[in-house]
Amino acid sequence: MSDQTTPRKKIVLVGASGTLGRAVLTALRERGHEVVTASRKDADIALDITDPASVAELYRQVGRVDAVASAAGTVPWKRLGELAAEDVRDGFEGKVLSQVELVRQGLSSVAENGSFTLITGILAREPIRTGAVASLANGAVESFVRAAAIELPREQRINAVSPTVFEESLDAYGDFFPGFDPVPVRRAAAAYVRSIEGHQTGQIYRVE
Amino acid sequence: MSDQTTPRKKIVLVGASGTLGRAVLTALRERGHEVVTASRKDADIALDITDPASVAELYRQVGRVDAVASAAGTVPWKRLGELAAEDVRDGFEGKVLSQVELVRQGLSSVAENGSFTLITGILAREPIRTGAVASLANGAVESFVRAAAIELPREQRINAVSPTVFEESLDAYGDFFPGFDPVPVRRAAAAYVRSIEGHQTGQIYRVE
Repeated sequence: MSDQTTPRKKIVLVGASGTLGRAVLTALRERGHEVVTASRKDADIALDITDPASVAELYRQVGRVDAVASAAGTVPWKRLGELAAEDVRDGFEGKVLSQVELVRQGLSSVAENGSFTLITGILAREPIRTGAVASLANGAVESFVRAAAIELPREQRINAVSPTVFEESLDAYGDFFPGFDPVPVRRAAAAYVRSIEGHQTGQIYRVE
Repeated sequence: MSDQTTPRKKIVLVGASGTLGRAVLTALRERGHEVVTASRKDADIALDITDPASVAELYRQVGRVDAVASAAGTVPWKRLGELAAEDVRDGFEGKVLSQVELVRQGLSSVAENGSFTLITGILAREPIRTGAVASLANGAVESFVRAAAIELPREQRINAVSPTVFEESLDAYGDFFPGFDPVPVRRAAAAYVRSIEGHQTGQIYRVE
């Protein structure tokens, strides 16, 4: 191939401090990209993704970027019979609207041919108990990604990374995923590289 | 088979006045069931599905039921670049949280072996322009249905009906679905019968 060198991209990584976010940060820097991190704490830019004004401030500070990668999202974990309506709203605000805002407000900041990569997860298709809101949120984001892909301006692209439980998270969450085959988090990080450097759009990259 | 007669069930049908709701009402009455309709207007019980207090009042009035069937849900239709955060919230409240509330608040009203049947739609998997919020909402409800199925008490069941565009709606919406193969609305109504009288749970009945 004549064009083997990937051009260095400027990438905003949201949620760089978690297990997945750290792995994505490492993978993107190893690929030579300039990564600006945005998180509630310990990041280049302070960001509360559930606050649209904070998202607006992120884009004001960061300027034009080639890619936005999200590894952030929080949902409540409760049994169905214990869920309050407010829990369902919290999950929507914490993982769905927050990521939709990154896209909606990022339309004018992301370069031509630039990309958005959002995070979902296996619970969209394989439920576990206490995970109803997580499932709901993941399913919402995956369908949104497919839909946004056919409406993005200036050949922008959008994909989602939808991993199963990570080997690195088994101590904390393993009991919730009996018999699920865990993956090393670097495989999920590689899916972000694939989304950002590749040319597909509207894809849900299942890492399982 | 020794048990060919379907026992008459008491069913709450939410959203009985639309194209789909009327067809479901007809199908369920033809099967001999007692159907209590609940809608914003022209129904046995007045219901605003976006108001949790109204949902609570519905269940207080209707008492014990064998099935809850929802054919109701509204979402905004706008191009991605014109969506406001409030539009995304409106779609969540209008089609996702509303139907989750029917389940959440209905857990104690639905009989043992009773069922919930929710409405989604083909945009969960096949997007059209202006449909990003509809896609998001449908994807959310489908993943919620799969998740709730493994947590419902007393052998209650839950399924979703996910139809493509109806032949009866082509005049109004046909231009949004170029080349989509429309189905007669009675096929979607039959999927409600299948969900209510059958024994499956966690299923997404695609009618396309």
